[in-house]
Amino acid sequence: MTTTVNINADMGESFGRYTLGDDASLLKIIKSANIACGMHAGDPTVMRRTVELAKANGVSVGAHPGFNDIWGFGRREMQMRANDLENLVAYQIAALAGISSMVGVPVTHVKPHGALHNVASRDPDMACAVVKGIKAIDPNLVLVCLATLELEKAGLAIGLPVAREAYIDRVYEDDGSLRSRMNDDAMIHDPEVAAAHVVRMIVDRTIVSRSGKRIPCTIDSLCVHGDEPTTLATAAAARKALEQAGVRIATLPEMNIAKRAAVG
Amino acid sequence: MTTTVNINADMGESFGRYTLGDDASLLKIIKSANIACGMHAGDPTVMRRTVELAKANGVSVGAHPGFNDIWGFGRREMQMRANDLENLVAYQIAALAGISSMVGVPVTHVKPHGALHNVASRDPDMACAVVKGIKAIDPNLVLVCLATLELEKAGLAIGLPVAREAYIDRVYEDDGSLRSRMNDDAMIHDPEVAAAHVVRMIVDRTIVSRSGKRIPCTIDSLCVHGDEPTTLATAAAARKALEQAGVRIATLPEMNIAKRAAVG
Amino acid sequence: MTTTVNINADMGESFGRYTLGDDASLLKIIKSANIACGMHAGDPTVMRRTVELAKANGVSVGAHPGFNDIWGFGRREMQMRANDLENLVAYQIAALAGISSMVGVPVTHVKPHGALHNVASRDPDMACAVVKGIKAIDPNLVLVCLATLELEKAGLAIGLPVAREAYIDRVYEDDGSLRSRMNDDAMIHDPEVAAAHVVRMIVDRTIVSRSGKRIPCTIDSLCVHGDEPTTLATAAAARKALEQAGVRIATLPEMNIAKRAAVG
Amino acid sequence: MTTTVNINADMGESFGRYTLGDDASLLKIIKSANIACGMHAGDPTVMRRTVELAKANGVSVGAHPGFNDIWGFGRREMQMRANDLENLVAYQIAALAGISSMVGVPVTHVKPHGALHNVASRDPDMACAVVKGIKAIDPNLVLVCLATLELEKAGLAIGLPVAREAYIDRVYEDDGSLRSRMNDDAMIHDPEVAAAHVVRMIVDRTIVSRSGKRIPCTIDSLCVHGDEPTTLATAAAARKALEQAGVRIATLPEMNIAKRAAVG
Repeated sequence: MTTTVNINADMGESFGRYTLGDDASLLKIIKSANIACGMHAGDPTVMRRTVELAKANGVSVGAHPGFNDIWGFGRREMQMRANDLENLVAYQIAALAGISSMVGVPVTHVKPHGALHNVASRDPDMACAVVKGIKAIDPNLVLVCLATLELEKAGLAIGLPVAREAYIDRVYEDDGSLRSRMNDDAMIHDPEVAAAHVVRMIVDRTIVSRSGKRIPCTIDSLCVHGDEPTTLATAAAARKALEQAGVRIATLPEMNIAKRAAVG
Repeated sequence: MTTTVNINADMGESFGRYTLGDDASLLKIIKSANIACGMHAGDPTVMRRTVELAKANGVSVGAHPGFNDIWGFGRREMQMRANDLENLVAYQIAALAGISSMVGVPVTHVKPHGALHNVASRDPDMACAVVKGIKAIDPNLVLVCLATLELEKAGLAIGLPVAREAYIDRVYEDDGSLRSRMNDDAMIHDPEVAAAHVVRMIVDRTIVSRSGKRIPCTIDSLCVHGDEPTTLATAAAARKALEQAGVRIATLPEMNIAKRAAVG
Repeated sequence: MTTTVNINADMGESFGRYTLGDDASLLKIIKSANIACGMHAGDPTVMRRTVELAKANGVSVGAHPGFNDIWGFGRREMQMRANDLENLVAYQIAALAGISSMVGVPVTHVKPHGALHNVASRDPDMACAVVKGIKAIDPNLVLVCLATLELEKAGLAIGLPVAREAYIDRVYEDDGSLRSRMNDDAMIHDPEVAAAHVVRMIVDRTIVSRSGKRIPCTIDSLCVHGDEPTTLATAAAARKALEQAGVRIATLPEMNIAKRAAVG
Repeated sequence: MTTTVNINADMGESFGRYTLGDDASLLKIIKSANIACGMHAGDPTVMRRTVELAKANGVSVGAHPGFNDIWGFGRREMQMRANDLENLVAYQIAALAGISSMVGVPVTHVKPHGALHNVASRDPDMACAVVKGIKAIDPNLVLVCLATLELEKAGLAIGLPVAREAYIDRVYEDDGSLRSRMNDDAMIHDPEVAAAHVVRMIVDRTIVSRSGKRIPCTIDSLCVHGDEPTTLATAAAARKALEQAGVRIATLPEMNIAKRAAVG
């Protein structure tokens, strides 16, 4: 049986006059795009242009909802009532779904952004609000998130298909968590190191931590950080190495996450 | 054959801590609600609460998109590229459609708000952008607008069902336009005067202008201003007078605008 | 020697079309106004109108900076780098000082709003950022805050004059903290009870807690909540009782906070 | 007598995560910086950092107020009551003055941004609102604007010192207006052409239009567009050519605009 994995990246984070990221190049490497929905980044026109680009590259489209904080780029935690958060998440997914329908593309996954992802990974109430907001819009939307944390638990509990993700260019600690970017050695900048790292994760189903510990893992989707100078090189090397190892790179819909869960 | 007319009002224009309008009372008189979508007023939680209230009152739900200007409450014209405006309108309708789907209610009409309505009534390019944004989300959405202006023309040209509206509590000029609210006598505050005015418009299909001129008219929907102290009294009197005259008060979907247009 | 106390209230929290609070009536009871600066509430025109009203009533003017979150009315905590917070506070005070100078009135105090007050009362780094932002604009600005918490400590440490405040209509716990508004009995709604409460605090320098414990206190300024239906009645009763007890009600500049601090 | 001229550019138009322009390089060529104030671009931290950079380069600081529209980068005209506009302009100048005072630098000029500049150049009421907002903050602030238009007239009428500006890298029409950027030949991209153009304007006091017509002019300040790839090259060439022609490049305060006006 062929091993299959998805590659995703955050996209459409420009805003009006402000341009961010090299979406056009990244779209040639990834298979699923997490598109900002106008609250932490993105405006209606950027959203539409990004969906059009994704479509042209055969990349599946997902919502990347965040806190409503352009100044902070959605990276600052905001205290929010669960009710407000649920509705804010639903609002953003629905808005992107509308813009995507103009382009003739369905929205098939959701990956919360930045501080919202962090809060929902830690706080069960916020996690519950997020997955309720997602499910209310469409119960078939695939939730993309880090494994084992509150957000994944809430997604599984409410019956959403969940794709577990890992990072192409991040160093892991012995407990399976990401090494904090406060440290200089948190990122993998060497394409060859990234390539070996992803092959181990997907083919051998093992993360090797910073200290050398081997941690078993099951990864559905690999995430590329869009904001490092080495992003394109490490992502391209990782994808090439996976393909050479016989791994199929698929869009999230092609991963059949829901069906596998049902069989699981 | 029974004469039928819709009554609509703008709703859901509160925002966070700020409360505006007496939606709960108005919903007992109207049959279709134009709900703000978060750009000129409304937030995701206000939107949801308003849809829930509309549903509980058997009132149909429409989007009330506006310029992205909370400070100006969408009443200040903003120069916008047609492309941006089309996407901004689509974004808002889609966001409300998502929130409404959480409540199990469809969005069935669109009425642009304030300065956006004014700009699109006057400027063919902006009118075209608005109707393209509406049609891209759902070609069955009923466009509610003032008759004979650019917005109606653009809606008909692109094939949207169009509901022509008139105001319950506004005085008309000889050319069929609304008397400007700059004038003290622009509004009808007396419930009996409003009642006679709407019966003439719907039963006799005639507007009597300020100077007494009789103007033929075909009206699908009567709009109630939500922000006058006399709103509830004039609206209630108008509805009662219409019912006593044998007019049926219907939601916009019950008006079968699209079918009538096809027969037209 | 006459006992003197200030009475303050939050003001100018309207925003564009949205009106909040009865500033005109409150200004007849208080002596210092904490004016919102456009980030959690208030817009440039509301700010100017509020300063004009304060001036007309002989009420001194202070800045009421908050987190940049109109939707949440500044009541949601936002994670913010100390650097950003310092600059955000300075920005708001300076903006109000400019608007006030148009009216010919100086800004003489600062009282952080809502979630910003809460964060700065608890977190020494955030408290430090706030007082640095204040001092950089004007080292003579009086910081108005709850006694004994991190914000007061930071203000004293950096050399700002600090006015300690207490609430006219709040119930206190045995440890001197405010009873949480989660509880039904957190507020004093009875004007006579409020009157006795403030006279005890100012004349007897004693807070009597919910359980009857007597806590010594030194209060410079009494705060009126603007958002309770009983606000005007309790505030008027409190002020009248204080005056009948021989207490002088003064603006914050008249309190000579800095001089008293120097004398110690 | 030595001829003297100022060179200015728009600055500090980054916003949070979004970076725009190469302020550090431009600051080595210009002598006065027009700094965005948080409404169309800029945030409190960007404002402070930009003032610090300006100070380090001996560049004088001015406010660059704009419409409150980050999405549109202040380039979309917004309908606004004169009252609101006056207060919005004052708010922004005051906020920057506060941030600048933290760095120990005075704000000495004001140049309206984008659509606000356009509106105020054309509409006498809006021009009047802008200059009232400026004068209310500080009557010594130098208004930098295009010559002969409504904004200059309003500035002179209210008694503000006015600096007339021209563009280093723009082609002029026979009537002295700027060739619209809709045309491919609106910009001067060749450094040598720009150098000859500015020397003619400042030394010969003559603009040579696209068709070769010679137009007399009196220019106080030359503006550099920050957003062209050729900006730095043309600006550097222009400055060098002026210096070689014996022209002194000065900050706006060194231009003594007010004194010259008094002398007439």
